Amino acid sequence: MELRRWPRKNDPDSIRARQEELAPRLDGEREVFEHDLTPFAKATEAITGVALVPVAVVGPLDVELGDYALEEPDGRLVERGRGREGVYVPLANTEGGLSISLYRGARAVGESGGFRTYVLKDRITRASAFLFADVGEAVAFARWIEAQVPEMQAWLASDPVANLSRHARLRELETHVVGPVCHVMYAYTTGDACGMNMITRNSYALNQGFVLERAPIRPQRAMLEGNMGGDKKPSARYFERGGHGKTVVAEATLSEEAVRRVLKTSIDDLAELAFVGTHGAVASGMQSVAFTPATAIAALFTATGQDIGMVGTSSMAHGTARRVDGGLHVSMRLASLEVATVGGGTTLPYARSWLRLMGCDGPGKVYRLAQIVTAATLSLEISASAAMATAGSENFYRAHFERGGLR
Amino acid sequence: MELRRWPRKNDPDSIRARQEELAPRLDGEREVFEHDLTPFAKATEAITGVALVPVAVVGPLDVELGDYALEEPDGRLVERGRGREGVYVPLANTEGGLSISLYRGARAVGESGGFRTYVLKDRITRASAFLFADVGEAVAFARWIEAQVPEMQAWLASDPVANLSRHARLRELETHVVGPVCHVMYAYTTGDACGMNMITRNSYALNQGFVLERAPIRPQRAMLEGNMGGDKKPSARYFERGGHGKTVVAEATLSEEAVRRVLKTSIDDLAELAFVGTHGAVASGMQSVAFTPATAIAALFTATGQDIGMVGTSSMAHGTARRVDGGLHVSMRLASLEVATVGGGTTLPYARSWLRLMGCDGPGKVYRLAQIVTAATLSLEISASAAMATAGSENFYRAHFERGGLR
Amino acid sequence: MELRRWPRKNDPDSIRARQEELAPRLDGEREVFEHDLTPFAKATEAITGVALVPVAVVGPLDVELGDYALEEPDGRLVERGRGREGVYVPLANTEGGLSISLYRGARAVGESGGFRTYVLKDRITRASAFLFADVGEAVAFARWIEAQVPEMQAWLASDPVANLSRHARLRELETHVVGPVCHVMYAYTTGDACGMNMITRNSYALNQGFVLERAPIRPQRAMLEGNMGGDKKPSARYFERGGHGKTVVAEATLSEEAVRRVLKTSIDDLAELAFVGTHGAVASGMQSVAFTPATAIAALFTATGQDIGMVGTSSMAHGTARRVDGGLHVSMRLASLEVATVGGGTTLPYARSWLRLMGCDGPGKVYRLAQIVTAATLSLEISASAAMATAGSENFYRAHFERGGLR
Amino acid sequence: MELRRWPRKNDPDSIRARQEELAPRLDGEREVFEHDLTPFAKATEAITGVALVPVAVVGPLDVELGDYALEEPDGRLVERGRGREGVYVPLANTEGGLSISLYRGARAVGESGGFRTYVLKDRITRASAFLFADVGEAVAFARWIEAQVPEMQAWLASDPVANLSRHARLRELETHVVGPVCHVMYAYTTGDACGMNMITRNSYALNQGFVLERAPIRPQRAMLEGNMGGDKKPSARYFERGGHGKTVVAEATLSEEAVRRVLKTSIDDLAELAFVGTHGAVASGMQSVAFTPATAIAALFTATGQDIGMVGTSSMAHGTARRVDGGLHVSMRLASLEVATVGGGTTLPYARSWLRLMGCDGPGKVYRLAQIVTAATLSLEISASAAMATAGSENFYRAHFERGGLR
Repeated sequence: MELRRWPRKNDPDSIRARQEELAPRLDGEREVFEHDLTPFAKATEAITGVALVPVAVVGPLDVELGDYALEEPDGRLVERGRGREGVYVPLANTEGGLSISLYRGARAVGESGGFRTYVLKDRITRASAFLFADVGEAVAFARWIEAQVPEMQAWLASDPVANLSRHARLRELETHVVGPVCHVMYAYTTGDACGMNMITRNSYALNQGFVLERAPIRPQRAMLEGNMGGDKKPSARYFERGGHGKTVVAEATLSEEAVRRVLKTSIDDLAELAFVGTHGAVASGMQSVAFTPATAIAALFTATGQDIGMVGTSSMAHGTARRVDGGLHVSMRLASLEVATVGGGTTLPYARSWLRLMGCDGPGKVYRLAQIVTAATLSLEISASAAMATAGSENFYRAHFERGGLR
Repeated sequence: MELRRWPRKNDPDSIRARQEELAPRLDGEREVFEHDLTPFAKATEAITGVALVPVAVVGPLDVELGDYALEEPDGRLVERGRGREGVYVPLANTEGGLSISLYRGARAVGESGGFRTYVLKDRITRASAFLFADVGEAVAFARWIEAQVPEMQAWLASDPVANLSRHARLRELETHVVGPVCHVMYAYTTGDACGMNMITRNSYALNQGFVLERAPIRPQRAMLEGNMGGDKKPSARYFERGGHGKTVVAEATLSEEAVRRVLKTSIDDLAELAFVGTHGAVASGMQSVAFTPATAIAALFTATGQDIGMVGTSSMAHGTARRVDGGLHVSMRLASLEVATVGGGTTLPYARSWLRLMGCDGPGKVYRLAQIVTAATLSLEISASAAMATAGSENFYRAHFERGGLR
Repeated sequence: MELRRWPRKNDPDSIRARQEELAPRLDGEREVFEHDLTPFAKATEAITGVALVPVAVVGPLDVELGDYALEEPDGRLVERGRGREGVYVPLANTEGGLSISLYRGARAVGESGGFRTYVLKDRITRASAFLFADVGEAVAFARWIEAQVPEMQAWLASDPVANLSRHARLRELETHVVGPVCHVMYAYTTGDACGMNMITRNSYALNQGFVLERAPIRPQRAMLEGNMGGDKKPSARYFERGGHGKTVVAEATLSEEAVRRVLKTSIDDLAELAFVGTHGAVASGMQSVAFTPATAIAALFTATGQDIGMVGTSSMAHGTARRVDGGLHVSMRLASLEVATVGGGTTLPYARSWLRLMGCDGPGKVYRLAQIVTAATLSLEISASAAMATAGSENFYRAHFERGGLR
Repeated sequence: MELRRWPRKNDPDSIRARQEELAPRLDGEREVFEHDLTPFAKATEAITGVALVPVAVVGPLDVELGDYALEEPDGRLVERGRGREGVYVPLANTEGGLSISLYRGARAVGESGGFRTYVLKDRITRASAFLFADVGEAVAFARWIEAQVPEMQAWLASDPVANLSRHARLRELETHVVGPVCHVMYAYTTGDACGMNMITRNSYALNQGFVLERAPIRPQRAMLEGNMGGDKKPSARYFERGGHGKTVVAEATLSEEAVRRVLKTSIDDLAELAFVGTHGAVASGMQSVAFTPATAIAALFTATGQDIGMVGTSSMAHGTARRVDGGLHVSMRLASLEVATVGGGTTLPYARSWLRLMGCDGPGKVYRLAQIVTAATLSLEISASAAMATAGSENFYRAHFERGGLR
């Protein structure tokens, strides 16, 4: 195989060179090349064209949102107030029925008193690993490093090396010894950014500049990530405890009237579906208890420049449904919702605008965005469940069949 | 909350009405509205604008691809031949470092003899559920329905109701009784489409027109999906056995020379990382054994009009690394890769072109696409691992830091 | 450290030699040595003494049991009839409250119409593994071996080597390729024995005498067990599908009267506990949905000479509770209950007698035993749940506190 | 069904009444009734007879044990010293080959320098659950209760109600909100007892006397256990983090010489088996990475009066194997080993003696016992792996076949 290097630069000549090289493979379809790529030149190497995804907008979602901030120095979330408003959500998708179904769920909740959302936790984790000669050394190292957090915080604050992120603040660390390896889970907060790049830089600096310099037992190897970190791979650890983004819960109490009139089903139907679906999830070793959390999250992530590779981890979902007086209480817990309102893809055109539509562009908005995404996810979950819960799931079938859009 | 209905239609007036209603929330940013939405009008209700994602292209990936077809009548995959070629892959992403890293992995493999890919299985599952008065009834029903597959196949072929899909072919079914519920996993093949809509229609027809008409014991309720089906939620069932798309494996044997020269690391480094990372995954209850499978899959899915909500399930990954004479054998198994070359978002502009770039547009190409995606995923995995495996993971750090793109 | 060999034989002199060597460590406590060990001399090497566990007996459990047999040649279970009777169960345990609690559950069910039990599946698996040079070879091997079951059955029946078990009948096999390895799950039935020894012998013979002789691609290594077999380690595979023993379900419908009078709680209380406990199990990544299945299984296993190392796998449990007219329907599914009525520890004194108490000694009784164990497990589950479900779990507390036995 | 009450008392007349009632079902086999039950009268209600299990003893295991104590007031484990000795282990079992195999593993390690063991953590958890009207209340309650640990500790120390355990010391608590439920994991240390009864009493007192009295938001229901507690059900939470007993690691470095001479295999063979077996475990959704941890644990638990129902949770195991200079490093991590040297079944004859054999009877010995059990588990794991790793697993087959004992 020929090993000529593929040009990676994003100057106009390099872009054009790539396009010309590839054009023959496209049989004259050049629309993908015909956008101004300048605004995107720093987004990815070897940029060559664009993808364009249609965006539906539905709303308003009637949501009571919490106003959250991190308490210093421990980084615990505190709720400073709550407010209710109507929000429109942009859904980049090509799945006929999705947007109208989500809207139906939102209307049912709107008629029932609205959503309420809560952010429970905010951490993002880089799990470095240190390999030793034996378990005894790894255990001794674990004991040592567990006591270093204050010193590490001070060291990072002293600006010891260039290009550290000030937004990424180390909050805690946790160790896990298995075999001759000590995994170290560094937990950070990262402001309004998702923060993986930030915490990578800071963790690398910690490992090289602090740990390897000071550890009483020198590891054979230091690895920036030893795969306990939950980055883009769902795991039991992060499903239970969060730690890769925001842990958020949305809830609503559906009235009998709204269930009947808007959702065209009954509380009984929904309760029986919850029974069947919860045990079905357990039976197949599904981690999430939910019908379709990833659908709404994917549509919002694509519209707003989030990392699409994080759709799977952000969709680790635990939904509940419980009869209460006069209706059905429903909730959706997203354990590790990885969203940003600054940095990465959120800085680009289109993404920026769709964030703005929700009042989520720029700093200080990340908890707002996390709550809106969770409410939207619960909206779709309610509607999809309602469609499935009718006799024989007739409504679900119709949604797929009649409004199935592209086939 | 005001309950005025939000317009859902996609005629020009409705589109404009939505745009005007929302414009004030965008502070004059109207670029998201300024594309011709006509080609997308059937893709989603309430279409209002677009999202635009930059696409990098890298290559060639040197891949030996299998040529697969379904054997009738049992629907087993047979390999009809194998061929080697160079493929360019479109990566819709905004993650600096991604495309160049994937390319580096591809070069290392190219210098080592190329990728080889295999499709092991092709099924897509809808898991209906039938609720009975007690377990005894559910068990008796299970015994009955397990024997009905030939009759069901004949019934579906007889065109009993309108709008059934002929592409969706029922192949097997499996039951699972838990409590008074009998879950029925209908397993289909769906040609080159992903097929969730097709199998939803056919399963609904089966439940209503066949099962409820003929079952010796009538269930209290029939639900089209009882949540054992693995749709957009990772599960142990589909991780092990496949059944929600294509089960594909890619492999390569990295030469020492390529590891050293292209990947800037050593076989020892990579082997030790595999040891640490595999046990790290187990320790945190991660299902996948891999570093970053979702990253490549998300970028290819976004470029080619796949269902972004399926990024999580499609990324259920099992990677291995093993020293062999003269190098390191690496492989990546994707258990349930949900790709299509016809239907849904793949029919739209942009998506169509990016599929064409890979020679994957249209019928007869879905196994080709599945294999290319898997090879690309292994490319990135190799490169990310190599970056992580160097002393202190210096290269991984540099990739994030120096080429980190947008921050 | 001194490396003198410890004597392993079980002749009287060797036994006495061990006892004398160890006596000084026991400070004169010789009761553990003072039983006649003759009947146990073949049970374990290096036999030196005995353990003695008190056995409670409670009953009767009112159970409607199925009468099952294997259908030939496919080995599917068929139910030949059903009968109702009262069974007393022996519970080897030292946990104050256990036996009386199990009895309370049985009484509540007895007053509500009794248990009904069903055996869904019977298989036991040895998962050999074959290591190849690469994935391509492993895939080709998998295709080959999947087609060999009839030939393998014929080969085993031809008595090709000495000491094969005729009781262990190969029924199916399944392959799983991951990396350069092809795992082969051989699924057997083993009559009334648990059968691990039998299937080990037969699988070894198959690997050495059939597979390695005939396979078109020779593996680098053949391993009798590659750890996909579920032997004594709970796994998602065997939790869902069974395959390591008997898959059994027990059910009952508790009447309001029995719940109130015998269990001292209410249907409401039990239903709310089921809601909380099911979601609690999911939240912590628990595989089972149950409160205390292992307790009853351990007590019955210890009394009846089952393999205590299989308590964990046999306790993979999926319980449900659902309100129905006039009561609460409850069920318990044990996915892989590993019981025997012949072979191993069941042949010994004490074990034999306790099996006889239940009418489960000897051939043709293994499905009966499996059903009784499952009904007993559901008995205790009902009672423990009832204790937990009262206001503040007062009854559970009292059970532990007042009847807590040894402390 | 007749509902006459079965007598539960353990006075001689009641015992005899049960025996006479059941005798006809035993066809004259009365040996199970012929032991003096007096010493066991408080161990279980409805005592009727005994089970007798043969006990093999093998050794010495050459182990370097840590000497651990809890540091006050935080309850962290500190290591006060390390010492090396030879230990004999009692194995109550009827599995031919077990004891001799475990002994072989111990000899291989003994010739290679011995085991080293470490206790990483000691906690036992009761997970109460509080059900609220909605998520908002549950979240507010969680915030409140997380701050109450010091007050709870003071309250418990004030002897507020009778019969609290002083041995059970509350160390931390953790909350988990899912739906309208706040789960509260109370983590205790319990001295040398396993402690489930103790922590049940104290948690009940906390819930009734502290939480319900003081909580700013009153729950609808308080449940002593909401099934996040890991009691007798393996879970991802307790596999990763421990918290249901002792987290212990044993390690050894096998010399090439010992592997060849004692284990009759090679480092290469063992390393390849570790590769295959680790990925086999992942493929089947097995939590443990090990071949047979439950076997040794069950045998030691049965001999020493531990709770047999805890065999499954105590066997959550994570083993590693890694080539090092001159040999193979192996380790075994038991996440939640639930052992006691006081209380419960350990106070009874036989159990007491077998504990004494290991120098583990009475107070101050629980960490010693935990380490010995872990070393024994690793012994058997090494030997079983070695048998499996030989060409075709010939040695494993022979062990089952030739020494298979009872069949």
